[in-house]
Amino acid sequence: MSKATATKNIARKAQTDAPAVTRMLAEFAVTHPSKGWSDSVDLEAHRTFANWAGCAVGPSNHETVEFALAAIKEFSPAPQSSLLGRTEKVDMANAALINGISSHTFDFDDTHLKTIIHPAGPVASAILALGEHRSLSGRELIDALVIGIEVSCRVGNTIYPDHYDRGWHITGSTGMLGSAAACSRLLGLTADQTQMALGIAASQPVGLREQFGTMTKPLHPGAAAKVGLTAALMAKHGYTASLRALEAPRGLVQVYSDKTDWTQITENLGGSWEIALNTYKPFACGIVIHPSIDGCVQLREKLGIDANQVAKISVRVHPLVQELTGKKTPKDGLEGKFSVYHSCAVAFITGKATEHEYADEVVNRSDVLALRAKVELIVDPQMYEASCDVILETTDGKTHQVHVEHAVGSLERPMSNEQLKAKFVDQSAPILGAVQTQSAWETCMDLGNQPNLDALIHALTLKK
Amino acid sequence: MSKATATKNIARKAQTDAPAVTRMLAEFAVTHPSKGWSDSVDLEAHRTFANWAGCAVGPSNHETVEFALAAIKEFSPAPQSSLLGRTEKVDMANAALINGISSHTFDFDDTHLKTIIHPAGPVASAILALGEHRSLSGRELIDALVIGIEVSCRVGNTIYPDHYDRGWHITGSTGMLGSAAACSRLLGLTADQTQMALGIAASQPVGLREQFGTMTKPLHPGAAAKVGLTAALMAKHGYTASLRALEAPRGLVQVYSDKTDWTQITENLGGSWEIALNTYKPFACGIVIHPSIDGCVQLREKLGIDANQVAKISVRVHPLVQELTGKKTPKDGLEGKFSVYHSCAVAFITGKATEHEYADEVVNRSDVLALRAKVELIVDPQMYEASCDVILETTDGKTHQVHVEHAVGSLERPMSNEQLKAKFVDQSAPILGAVQTQSAWETCMDLGNQPNLDALIHALTLKK
Repeated sequence: MSKATATKNIARKAQTDAPAVTRMLAEFAVTHPSKGWSDSVDLEAHRTFANWAGCAVGPSNHETVEFALAAIKEFSPAPQSSLLGRTEKVDMANAALINGISSHTFDFDDTHLKTIIHPAGPVASAILALGEHRSLSGRELIDALVIGIEVSCRVGNTIYPDHYDRGWHITGSTGMLGSAAACSRLLGLTADQTQMALGIAASQPVGLREQFGTMTKPLHPGAAAKVGLTAALMAKHGYTASLRALEAPRGLVQVYSDKTDWTQITENLGGSWEIALNTYKPFACGIVIHPSIDGCVQLREKLGIDANQVAKISVRVHPLVQELTGKKTPKDGLEGKFSVYHSCAVAFITGKATEHEYADEVVNRSDVLALRAKVELIVDPQMYEASCDVILETTDGKTHQVHVEHAVGSLERPMSNEQLKAKFVDQSAPILGAVQTQSAWETCMDLGNQPNLDALIHALTLKK
Repeated sequence: MSKATATKNIARKAQTDAPAVTRMLAEFAVTHPSKGWSDSVDLEAHRTFANWAGCAVGPSNHETVEFALAAIKEFSPAPQSSLLGRTEKVDMANAALINGISSHTFDFDDTHLKTIIHPAGPVASAILALGEHRSLSGRELIDALVIGIEVSCRVGNTIYPDHYDRGWHITGSTGMLGSAAACSRLLGLTADQTQMALGIAASQPVGLREQFGTMTKPLHPGAAAKVGLTAALMAKHGYTASLRALEAPRGLVQVYSDKTDWTQITENLGGSWEIALNTYKPFACGIVIHPSIDGCVQLREKLGIDANQVAKISVRVHPLVQELTGKKTPKDGLEGKFSVYHSCAVAFITGKATEHEYADEVVNRSDVLALRAKVELIVDPQMYEASCDVILETTDGKTHQVHVEHAVGSLERPMSNEQLKAKFVDQSAPILGAVQTQSAWETCMDLGNQPNLDALIHALTLKK
């Protein structure tokens, strides 16, 4: 055995001299000053938090959340931390789990496009649960969010794409490190202890891509949040791990990935911010349809006409759009998410494409069916994947056209605060009501100034 | 992204036609009849359980356990299930965690030699916690132990050695499946639900080999136990996962390993038993020293002489013994475990090499130091790794020799029940006292006949 192992390690060119990134990230996590970044980064942190909170509230009574919570209730958890959009409290670790599951249930949260990591889920779910129980301030939470996401995404940059290509859902298999780093900071751990927390978390990645399309996909950020929070508490009490858990030959990076670009961690740490690259989905479907939806919404607003005045909507797109979302007659909401035809029709009629526009009854509504039949694709290999042309003919024979270079929600055309708020309201209002939703949005966007989390928790939960 | 991924999958020759092993294992786990195996397999299950219990009791007040428990207490866990060797109860999931950590803390538990999996930890820790809370019978526990270990080890056989060589601590990265299967059976889940439980667990492997030598090594079986138990409860409440979580191209086996020998699962499932191949460490140190210790103990018993009558002990060994355990002057207990010199000396003096014989004070005791100075190695590349010659010269000039072909504790020379009991007593008596230890041993070895777990829990825990 030992001989075979030795040979194998030579074959894989084990790097014994990798930089001490575990130590580096640990020191960074607990020593970087509060708000040690620009105002625009701090604003992005607030937008990230608010978007996460809305995404966690929206599905809070979805069966995915109900089933997970029913299992957790078998442990009779202590009422330490709140579940967003609900009345219950559970212990910190399981609040992190459940809120993390909820926030990814509609697959509608945020995306760090360089790695396809959904960065908020594992970090925000953990720090809110910990912060509520320990009565921390809003500033501490925002700081921990920026730091935690920096740790997850830098490790992601180091191993992406090989790690993802191999089959790992990178959100959950790097997220436990972000959660551990953020919680270590909130617990006031030393760099030594934080190094241990990262090590303890490194042994517990979460996430196979095979789970996409099942409830276990949103389990990944939730379980990663729980792992990281628990790891930080273990480190606080003296539990040990390898000091080189990330960089050693049999540590996380080399075991999880054949790509090991250490400079993604070592260069400019504390000087550039991955959270500044975060994006938010405006539409609750696969990203390839977003330009087409965007174009339809633009024409709707520009023309101000009714759907029955439309004769035809032609969308010129890259072939991938047809390949991935070419379902002409979707039968239900899930199929609707893979139909550019439904998406364009419903977007023109409602001006939106949120989770509600993919409800089974909406997909089968007569006005939507009528317009859907008028949508056609023009497949054009010359068209850039992220772009499209939408050409609309009205019943009076006129033609109107819009070109979308980048869809709203991309890095090039980030969602405005107003658009983000509309998304938040759309998810939150059916759960929390309009008044509380307004207060929840404002509190999230002002979190860094909140002396404690009372107002935030009050706004994001239901009373018994 | 999608194109790069597709290319990569072709390069890795993704197997889309792998057999439906997730379904197969799920059906097996819940439909195989109670005690549907020979008496000798059933006896081995009892020996496995008893050995695990002793190993969990021994370190129950070690700082590894104390630190982990201190962290878990921050969640104010409900008192559902007992911690072995202690007075406290915590919730089921965390009882599985803590007992699993304890059982591997001295690295003294069991070994499935084909895969180097320590099979009992993840499974026994989970089923005892669940069984206590749900008032199950001893027979149900033994059945679940056999089934759970079968699942872990068959998946291990499928991916070993590549998975291990890559850097995974295979005990924790297959153990969550055994725990999930065993707990599914105990919960009376259907095969459909069990398939989901295996899927939920498949996304949550635990264990990097880089953690060896730290407290995170024993975390691996503990966390795997907790993951599997939680996964089974989630599946019970309707939570979903991929139906092909193990065999799909982006499922566990193909993501975790380049070796994918599916026949290790499909052939003779339910007809042969991996638990029959389980072995138990008689000595609390690396396995390469075991033949040398065994030889010294044999000569001690044969000659009946005092250590000061020994002039020299020469041990003829394979070069690996010197390479891995050639520390001539170990300074403390941990170094002692990597010293064939200390091990031979203390074994001749005490007749044992348990955790006590690797205490710091024993390693530095004058009589041990005196005999250690008389131990010498004869490195012989012709010697088989698992064998040795021990040649002892007495002060009267006579020479005595013993050849050890296989050390006690190997598959070829399994520990007798008496030897297993001595190991159990050695670990348990300092914690539980002699009387309770006797009762604990008897209850473990009679577990299949126990109508409930009351006597077992009573014998294995301390009263407040």
